[in-house]
Amino acid sequence: MRTKSFHNILVVGIGLIGGSILRNLSENKFSGHLYGLDLNEDIINKAHKLDLIENSNNNLETVTGDCLVVLSVPTLSFENAISLVKESLAVEKVLFTDTFSSKSEVLLLLDSNPDLKSRFVMSHPIAGSEKSGLVNSTSSLFKNKLAIISPHEFNQQDDLERLQKFWERLGSKVTFLDAQEHDRIFAKTSHLPHALAYALMSYLFNDLEHDVFSFSGGSLEDYTRIASSDSIMWKDIMISNRDELLKALDGFKISLDQMFDLIERGNSDDIKEFLDNIKLSRDSLIKEK
Amino acid sequence: MRTKSFHNILVVGIGLIGGSILRNLSENKFSGHLYGLDLNEDIINKAHKLDLIENSNNNLETVTGDCLVVLSVPTLSFENAISLVKESLAVEKVLFTDTFSSKSEVLLLLDSNPDLKSRFVMSHPIAGSEKSGLVNSTSSLFKNKLAIISPHEFNQQDDLERLQKFWERLGSKVTFLDAQEHDRIFAKTSHLPHALAYALMSYLFNDLEHDVFSFSGGSLEDYTRIASSDSIMWKDIMISNRDELLKALDGFKISLDQMFDLIERGNSDDIKEFLDNIKLSRDSLIKEK
Repeated sequence: MRTKSFHNILVVGIGLIGGSILRNLSENKFSGHLYGLDLNEDIINKAHKLDLIENSNNNLETVTGDCLVVLSVPTLSFENAISLVKESLAVEKVLFTDTFSSKSEVLLLLDSNPDLKSRFVMSHPIAGSEKSGLVNSTSSLFKNKLAIISPHEFNQQDDLERLQKFWERLGSKVTFLDAQEHDRIFAKTSHLPHALAYALMSYLFNDLEHDVFSFSGGSLEDYTRIASSDSIMWKDIMISNRDELLKALDGFKISLDQMFDLIERGNSDDIKEFLDNIKLSRDSLIKEK
Repeated sequence: MRTKSFHNILVVGIGLIGGSILRNLSENKFSGHLYGLDLNEDIINKAHKLDLIENSNNNLETVTGDCLVVLSVPTLSFENAISLVKESLAVEKVLFTDTFSSKSEVLLLLDSNPDLKSRFVMSHPIAGSEKSGLVNSTSSLFKNKLAIISPHEFNQQDDLERLQKFWERLGSKVTFLDAQEHDRIFAKTSHLPHALAYALMSYLFNDLEHDVFSFSGGSLEDYTRIASSDSIMWKDIMISNRDELLKALDGFKISLDQMFDLIERGNSDDIKEFLDNIKLSRDSLIKEK
């Protein structure tokens, strides 16, 4: 049987991710109806004026037929977003998904609400930018990017497949990954680098003040770009994936101390061997990707 | 009086930087003669075949008239590079410069050789890549990039001006900065980020092994790109700017511990304020650049 596409798609939180989803579907002549909700009604209005959504306010009386609700709000606005939808929409007709960067917290909230849990498939598009908001959204944001679906025990195969098709339609390649595993890995590969960039910028500002970028050829700007990310989104990630992030920071600090000792001892061969091993491993992993 | 350009230019160390200097001068019809030396004679041969230099081996008998010697070898090959030139060239006709990322060590070596010191103007083009070697060199490497000249008490104004013109001809904007100040600042804005990238990659490899980049959307590859830099160059930087780099690492660790505590305490407002301040400072410094 051919996987049935959704009749309606409702994006809750029309920022960079939500806006990009709507732009893509809209540009590619999505056959169903597109709706949007946001805690800020001005944004709904803007999205409506851009012809991205049919509704122009938070009233969704017109929605009939099955609906995919994509929660693309900051992680800790999860409950607010859910209640916004519950007010406007009969939950029975709805499959929910999210775009959060951490999953365990969502899973905890779903555990206290089994009705919602069975209709909720967690996903995480690995796409984004330090630039946030509808104004920076683009239809190509997901093109050739990974989208991770984290199934749980209440999910039905049919729902997983429909969601997979949804992300693939946006251009993503879909991978399935357990929620705890997701949080453990992303704490290291994404949340840790962001924490390092923030800590580095904080140190440099305190120490060099206006000279931080005075003598930089652009590399430092690149390297610290992610420290200009949306503060609400990243505050929520740091809180919702706190334990795994702290573990990652602890692990990194051990590695940094090794690096410190190596430099302090100043043995040429040892340092070169250390740097060579990293370069070799990195280059070969990048190549086999 | 118009600043006199150099009659000959001799690049010692034909890697990314040296090769890019030669390519630029060669493409832009430099009126004088171009020569190159390298500890690896194969590279001299390659550069000769590419028509970048006139000589095809380490024998420089033909060089007459004044000459700028650019030492673009790894920092700790300084003395080797100097002796290579001394064997082939009458030092009296020569103005020396370098392209090293740390200056204090060079200054120490020059202090023990006042004859050389008076003919040596230190410079540092803020241009580069994690890709090294002649094969990756490009004539546009210095375009709109900063080149720093670090004058010392024995330098003559005329030499400083000629060197400034040299870098400007390659497309760089020249800034003057005291050697100690240079090392203090670059320890923080360049050497520290490299050390962090190496430490991060080392941690991630040990912990995630082949999965480091499995779930990355490209950001982690960007963020760790500099950990694929040339290991000899960076080993030399870590050794030659050791004290300033250790200070920078100490300062960063304090900042990282603050970040750790902030996440551990998990106060939403405090974290948001911290991230907001960083974003605001960074965005405004980037804008005023």
